[in-house]
Amino acid sequence: MVYDDQNIFARILRGELPAIKVYEDDQVLAFMDIMPQAEGHTLVIPKTPAVTLLDLAPEAAAYTIQIVQKVAQAIETALGAQGIVLMQLSGASAGQTVPHVHFHLIPSSVHELGKHAVQMGDQDKIKAQAEQIKSALEAL
Amino acid sequence: MVYDDQNIFARILRGELPAIKVYEDDQVLAFMDIMPQAEGHTLVIPKTPAVTLLDLAPEAAAYTIQIVQKVAQAIETALGAQGIVLMQLSGASAGQTVPHVHFHLIPSSVHELGKHAVQMGDQDKIKAQAEQIKSALEAL
Repeated sequence: MVYDDQNIFARILRGELPAIKVYEDDQVLAFMDIMPQAEGHTLVIPKTPAVTLLDLAPEAAAYTIQIVQKVAQAIETALGAQGIVLMQLSGASAGQTVPHVHFHLIPSSVHELGKHAVQMGDQDKIKAQAEQIKSALEAL
Repeated sequence: MVYDDQNIFARILRGELPAIKVYEDDQVLAFMDIMPQAEGHTLVIPKTPAVTLLDLAPEAAAYTIQIVQKVAQAIETALGAQGIVLMQLSGASAGQTVPHVHFHLIPSSVHELGKHAVQMGDQDKIKAQAEQIKSALEAL
């Protein structure tokens, strides 16, 4: 699939758009979903350009899933999540909205999951959650 | 989390319960979900005992996600899926029902996703889909 380097995650990676980051290294970025399906909803993306999981270089997938594990652990620790839903949508018909491969980490709790991308979350609350997740990551 | 070696995936791995397999090597098994949320719903599991993604050894996660990529590609090729939903549920409150870490691959199409684990799928149809996926995997 042809990669559109103007997609919003590509622009976040280039620093052209802001993001509430919880983790970054030379290969991966993790940041808060600003339209969360649940409190603490975080996205993990490889920096390499790829539209879907099927397009992603296997080495990048292998590295990214290990960061997904760490961020999931940090979310559980920081926010007291009882469980975590990992979701990765490949293709518009699967519900993918941004054409840069991304892994959703959605903490589960007693609350039902909200529908995604319908309303903005409370940005101050999201920033506070990001700080909690970052602290937990540093302590891992 | 304590691993219960009597869970159904552990029993499938030991050959005590049947499964419609599409891929197997020394580290990973992929097989059809017999209560599919959509046609072609496939599960990929590491053979190492781990309850959730958070418990799984990073090396096993890295290997498993690469097999997930291959199986996803095979599903897309074999069944003409327009997209693929990857889902991994960690913890009962996230909807995990079998306490052995597993990755769901759910092809998307024009059909709505059905609710999981409510009714058995047409087993002959599932076996036929498995054959198609296996062929596509061999041709990758």
